[in-house]
Amino acid sequence: MISEKMMSLGKKSSVIRGIFEYGKKRKAEIGAENVFDFSLGNPSVPAPKEVTEIMKEFLETVPAEVLHGYTSGPGDIGVRTEIANYINNKFKVEASANLIYMTCGAAASLTISLNAIVNSGDEAIVLAPFFPEYRVFAEQAGATLKVVPCKKEDLQIDFVALEKAITNKTKAIIVNSPNNPSGVIIPECDIIKLSELLNNKQEEYGTDIYLLADEPYRELVFTGEEVPYIPKYYDNTIVCYSYSKALSLPGERIGYIFVSPKVTDCGDVYAAVCGAGRALGYVCAPSLMQYTIAKCLDKTADVSIYEANRKMLYDALTEYGYTVIKPDGAFYMFVKSPVEDANEFCEMAKKYELLLVPSDDFGVNGFVRISYCVSPEQIENSLPAFKKLIEEYKK
Amino acid sequence: MISEKMMSLGKKSSVIRGIFEYGKKRKAEIGAENVFDFSLGNPSVPAPKEVTEIMKEFLETVPAEVLHGYTSGPGDIGVRTEIANYINNKFKVEASANLIYMTCGAAASLTISLNAIVNSGDEAIVLAPFFPEYRVFAEQAGATLKVVPCKKEDLQIDFVALEKAITNKTKAIIVNSPNNPSGVIIPECDIIKLSELLNNKQEEYGTDIYLLADEPYRELVFTGEEVPYIPKYYDNTIVCYSYSKALSLPGERIGYIFVSPKVTDCGDVYAAVCGAGRALGYVCAPSLMQYTIAKCLDKTADVSIYEANRKMLYDALTEYGYTVIKPDGAFYMFVKSPVEDANEFCEMAKKYELLLVPSDDFGVNGFVRISYCVSPEQIENSLPAFKKLIEEYKK
Repeated sequence: MISEKMMSLGKKSSVIRGIFEYGKKRKAEIGAENVFDFSLGNPSVPAPKEVTEIMKEFLETVPAEVLHGYTSGPGDIGVRTEIANYINNKFKVEASANLIYMTCGAAASLTISLNAIVNSGDEAIVLAPFFPEYRVFAEQAGATLKVVPCKKEDLQIDFVALEKAITNKTKAIIVNSPNNPSGVIIPECDIIKLSELLNNKQEEYGTDIYLLADEPYRELVFTGEEVPYIPKYYDNTIVCYSYSKALSLPGERIGYIFVSPKVTDCGDVYAAVCGAGRALGYVCAPSLMQYTIAKCLDKTADVSIYEANRKMLYDALTEYGYTVIKPDGAFYMFVKSPVEDANEFCEMAKKYELLLVPSDDFGVNGFVRISYCVSPEQIENSLPAFKKLIEEYKK
Repeated sequence: MISEKMMSLGKKSSVIRGIFEYGKKRKAEIGAENVFDFSLGNPSVPAPKEVTEIMKEFLETVPAEVLHGYTSGPGDIGVRTEIANYINNKFKVEASANLIYMTCGAAASLTISLNAIVNSGDEAIVLAPFFPEYRVFAEQAGATLKVVPCKKEDLQIDFVALEKAITNKTKAIIVNSPNNPSGVIIPECDIIKLSELLNNKQEEYGTDIYLLADEPYRELVFTGEEVPYIPKYYDNTIVCYSYSKALSLPGERIGYIFVSPKVTDCGDVYAAVCGAGRALGYVCAPSLMQYTIAKCLDKTADVSIYEANRKMLYDALTEYGYTVIKPDGAFYMFVKSPVEDANEFCEMAKKYELLLVPSDDFGVNGFVRISYCVSPEQIENSLPAFKKLIEEYKK
């Protein structure tokens, strides 16, 4: 027999994918312009033109056997040095190239980090709502996933619930801010509180509890504020970064792991990251992309488009009578279902050709996720449908 | 405590890497032209110019949000269709897009395939000499590795030893032809014999034994013959392909898994491949590279350079008195150590600034591997050193 677990993972496509596939079918039936697909987090804004220009320049000037040759396993040392310098300038921490490991994007950053630190029987905590693949990644690494719901009113950390969930087996807590699926950003005061709680628990149990900061949406913030940089607040932090959203390069699979120098025995943890990358078959991150992002560290895709989408959608939905958690970042909006069962609400939405994702898969009930990384036209055209949809529930 | 296993994998760099690092140091000391580094399998021949041209064309003509957007998890359907058509035209098997899964290169092809089929306690067999990372990949997937030595005289399969090694726990046999580190190609008659043996054992035990055909060197053949395509001979075959060597793109991490349609319940195995890719954090293979290789399926890097290197080196070494296993493919040559301990021989070689890899890590004793994917000048300049080295043993 083959691996039943892997087979079922392969067969059971995610709910999000299922809705997306329905959307493709529906578009073929009634025309793409008549289906309002808000299911996927696929950036609609192109990569900055500098990214394209740098790639073309490299292709024209760097010998192909160098440009496309193996880099060292952790990534090209020049690239890692540039990233370390960028982090240090921006966040005033002491990053160094030998604590940075280039990855094939955020999913790889997480799977590699989890495999590096987890021993069989350890527990990993996620704060709901959470990105559903966290469960797959944590369980593959041998951890048991514990889900701690956030506070229903603002989807911020429920510290009472979190404290109860931490045990002497807690190896990792995954924090995702700005959050997918809610767009919520954890404020500095809560990061400080989280840090204090984890330090106390580490002392109480004599263990190390690693905070995995999953940060692909760091650059997508609409409040004008900087998202708190967790290594500044909590020592045992491993940053899992990706350029997928910041530079609109999700298909290229490029990101990094940064093991904070303040992590206990950070050299050992970094070595375990390198070992896990090796064991999972990641020989190196794609070389052309490594060199390219190193030249674009201060660039981001034009996030003002997402900001405008957010405003248009938020203003309209609240006006129509929806209850919306106002998103401060990312390109997701979490909307309260007017009925208890969000799946039922999503089925009703389909009648208006609105494709929304029920929140159950994200570990909470009663919400839907709207991915507004779509064209402004799609949002504008979808508004009458949103209006009619909520009116169904006012009858 | 973090994962000791991953930490030790990260700390213990491979023997090959160790020699390569020594070489870098030595080059800095005495000049690169005076060090004859034959340690790494990093292609010296550039990618075909068509690869560069196609990439530039895509960058100029395809909208960035499409070119760099997510593809589906198994890879872009158009790309997979083109690969399936190419395989069918070339090998007359019935490949289809829905049995092809795009990967980040051969290492990913192997780790994903192994995780798809292996349950804890299963055994995976490798034929020595073998690429040392096979052990890391198989053990990560939960398998126990069994090493079956090839026949010392020609490094071909020892069927008596192999038959003894197969048990009811044998889940996979990894076959690598042309072989790294020996360059040996398994002839058709042996593939037929292997197929018969495995079919008998499957029947005897009522199990499925998967043949993983690791084929990154398929296009690097110097005998004018086609390497036997294993799915034509053995039903339970999973092809693990990579474009790293064929198109000289090792840093870009692009390849595929092809589950033969004759594999038992091939749809389930393919689903398990998709599930394993998902669980290991491979969201999709790099998108630009997917689209690029699909336009270059009939291209290869200029392997005539490797062929000339092979001839120059083989002719000289045999003339000097070395015993060489004549390599039919890849860009490796396996040379008998004139003393029992190949490590001792490699230390002696260092005195002549020749950096060779002892065979112990490849699972056999008494040989060294020479990677001749270097410049013809390096080979020419190294010949006097090779001559003096063997003369040490004639005294």
